[in-house]
Amino acid sequence: TIVRHPVPEWSEFDAEDVWGTVLQSIQAAVQQCDRPERIHAISVASMGESAFPVDAGGNVLHAAIAWYDQRTVAEAQWWENIAGRERIFTITGHIPRPTYGVNKLLWLRNHVPQVVERIHHWLSIEDFVLWKLSGSFATDYSIASRTMLFDQRTLTWSEPLLEQAGLPAAWFPPAFPSGTAIGTVSKEVAEQTGLPQQTIVSTGGHDHLCGALAVGVTQAGHLLESIGTASVIMAVSDAFRPSPELLAAGCNSYAYVVQHTYVTLGALNSAGGALEWIVTLLYGQGKQGTVSQENYTQALREAAEVPPGARGAIILPSFLGSGTPYGKSSARGAILGLTPSHNRPELVRALIEGLAFWLRDNTEMLCNLGIAPPHPEITVIGGTTQATLLLQIKAEITGCPLKVPQITEAAATGAALLAGMGANIFRSGEEAASSVRHTVQIYEPVAEAVEIYNTIYEQTYLPARRLFI
Amino acid sequence: TIVRHPVPEWSEFDAEDVWGTVLQSIQAAVQQCDRPERIHAISVASMGESAFPVDAGGNVLHAAIAWYDQRTVAEAQWWENIAGRERIFTITGHIPRPTYGVNKLLWLRNHVPQVVERIHHWLSIEDFVLWKLSGSFATDYSIASRTMLFDQRTLTWSEPLLEQAGLPAAWFPPAFPSGTAIGTVSKEVAEQTGLPQQTIVSTGGHDHLCGALAVGVTQAGHLLESIGTASVIMAVSDAFRPSPELLAAGCNSYAYVVQHTYVTLGALNSAGGALEWIVTLLYGQGKQGTVSQENYTQALREAAEVPPGARGAIILPSFLGSGTPYGKSSARGAILGLTPSHNRPELVRALIEGLAFWLRDNTEMLCNLGIAPPHPEITVIGGTTQATLLLQIKAEITGCPLKVPQITEAAATGAALLAGMGANIFRSGEEAASSVRHTVQIYEPVAEAVEIYNTIYEQTYLPARRLFI
Repeated sequence: TIVRHPVPEWSEFDAEDVWGTVLQSIQAAVQQCDRPERIHAISVASMGESAFPVDAGGNVLHAAIAWYDQRTVAEAQWWENIAGRERIFTITGHIPRPTYGVNKLLWLRNHVPQVVERIHHWLSIEDFVLWKLSGSFATDYSIASRTMLFDQRTLTWSEPLLEQAGLPAAWFPPAFPSGTAIGTVSKEVAEQTGLPQQTIVSTGGHDHLCGALAVGVTQAGHLLESIGTASVIMAVSDAFRPSPELLAAGCNSYAYVVQHTYVTLGALNSAGGALEWIVTLLYGQGKQGTVSQENYTQALREAAEVPPGARGAIILPSFLGSGTPYGKSSARGAILGLTPSHNRPELVRALIEGLAFWLRDNTEMLCNLGIAPPHPEITVIGGTTQATLLLQIKAEITGCPLKVPQITEAAATGAALLAGMGANIFRSGEEAASSVRHTVQIYEPVAEAVEIYNTIYEQTYLPARRLFI
Repeated sequence: TIVRHPVPEWSEFDAEDVWGTVLQSIQAAVQQCDRPERIHAISVASMGESAFPVDAGGNVLHAAIAWYDQRTVAEAQWWENIAGRERIFTITGHIPRPTYGVNKLLWLRNHVPQVVERIHHWLSIEDFVLWKLSGSFATDYSIASRTMLFDQRTLTWSEPLLEQAGLPAAWFPPAFPSGTAIGTVSKEVAEQTGLPQQTIVSTGGHDHLCGALAVGVTQAGHLLESIGTASVIMAVSDAFRPSPELLAAGCNSYAYVVQHTYVTLGALNSAGGALEWIVTLLYGQGKQGTVSQENYTQALREAAEVPPGARGAIILPSFLGSGTPYGKSSARGAILGLTPSHNRPELVRALIEGLAFWLRDNTEMLCNLGIAPPHPEITVIGGTTQATLLLQIKAEITGCPLKVPQITEAAATGAALLAGMGANIFRSGEEAASSVRHTVQIYEPVAEAVEIYNTIYEQTYLPARRLFI
């Protein structure tokens, strides 16, 4: 997706850029298809929070503010003050943050009122694409959730919040379960892309959740860790339970792409990012972005030789806040227990263990809140899943078996499954997910190692962590 | 000095090795001398704690256990238990530690009783050399102090402690002020070395203290930081005040080589050692001992460009214990306040600032106890005094001007001054020290920088430090 910066700190997506990219992607996919006439349905896995304002005539009125753009801090503060943090969480499952859709809409109202005067539709990226594909206005529960205006208890737009914000309910498209057929592709789209005229358009979902579906996370009690620059831990449950504990932990909870289930999300802002940082610092040229695959390979190979506990070195990977479940956004990274004989491999090992201790704290929190079973199986996806060492250590520190599906383009695969559900090819998320052919690596915790790490956790890590978070 | 290891963890000095080295050094010095007949006196700057047991016939009965040898832990515990930690400190000015002379003697009594049965003299290295030079038994107050059996209040051997330990007072040589003539060199020594027959032999002192004298630290209120692998802060005072605060801070206090004055010592076990560690880790090959002068130069040059506060990174250099004045020997190094954008120069800067904050805490403690004046001038000696950046930062973080004498072989120079005092060439330590020709670099604190660092100290460093020590 092309990102535009009208001022350096702002990031936006242009509607024509987005739609152009979608068309090109469909064209490319159709061209790679042996028998495109067999394409039954299409759906969308999209980023959340970003949305286009559209007028009565179907004209896009403003670029979509990028999901991570921080210009909306003042609006977010105003909205949290008047709507109430706990109340927002109890209704929407989201802990107020500037980036959610409502704050982007409030920002437009404050800064470009002439746009807001003409709004008839507020279309999140998924909704925009569904509309451009089919001509229908629709969204799915998960993308609707990311506006922070969607009531998880009723799975409808929250009238009280909309009223309080002074936003007409009519602006928001009807919300459906993911994988609901909402029409077929328009004649124009069929011609432009080569899709068959009768291709069904189905509601999709938030991209992370689509990816989770593709790798088989379909039922209450399933856990997934998605590792990128940040790390996200996701648990599926069969009810929406916005407890005060969850709020204190900093976890959002909202509708999943499998009907009648919800996800609860924990996060650490700097996970793969922290690993990149330390490898750059200790094995690379010292400058960000200069680290090579060889540097990673060497660092991980050497760290694998270090015994559990990294000879007393502990790294708390709070480089961009503590993450869940501690909820201290002002926390920063800490390297503790250092002696003048600690070396590079030991520090890399300490970071890897720190990331695994973070995962343990989160799975335990989810277990304590009844969201995850004790010692659940954890499916792991994401960039650094290549790091075998990291995964074995995570299995031993959490005491949970890790399942690593060998799959690329998980989010797009999940969207395809939802398309198939809209076309009635699959009758359940489980059936859909089981149709995906991929191999899975399993990392089983070894009992003795679990015991060793348990001692380190209790005697070394916990006392150190509690000094900070 | 040759170190022998009868078992791998033990370190000892052989009497013949020591005396052989002394003779060679004197011979070499005499040979380099234009007019050796003008040599008036000789004295000794020596390590402390190590001593030789000698029998009635002048035979050395055992090698000297190295000052840092840790075999005496059990004896130290026994002695501390029966004599009492506070009582030992109040009498001897030393906080019980295995390495002091008394524990070495107790170890010999426990492990080689046949040696102790024959002891007539317990000669610390200085005493041994003075005896070999002159035939006289003598020690000076500072070296006597390092036995942990010397009463600082009376400047005599402590009868109560000797009795309690079951050690005859007669074993210990008479103690004199440093720079006291105790005789002349023996005919044999004169012949072997080329020293004139009438060369006066004077009591010397503990090597660190001799070095301090040479660089002009002569009066109450003077401060000296000696930077090596460890860092030692030394303050001169005109009275022995073994306060509970000093004991809690972990500071020893004992007779200085300038008469009627005492030193109080603070220490950080890993100072230059910590700098070497981080430069090795970030700029070297990662393995200890591989760091080059170029690595240091680059690291310090880059760290100099980093603004005060190292962008929020803080390093507590407790890599081998907190050091004084916090007295937490179990503390270990900590790097705090880290973000994924911290780079190598910022981490080196953070360490340098951490070492300076340690110095500030110690000068403030000495000031609060009335041992140092507010914002005293600090004389700095030692290996890393080449690091200009380190010194300017220390001046600004402590708010004290730093004086860096350009002198090599300070300890030997101090011994020469004490020899001169024994020969009545100098009438005071001050007069002696002022005879040493050397240049001095001054680092003055800049008021604005002092203010900036003061804010960092109070708002960032102190809250972080107090989490640990």
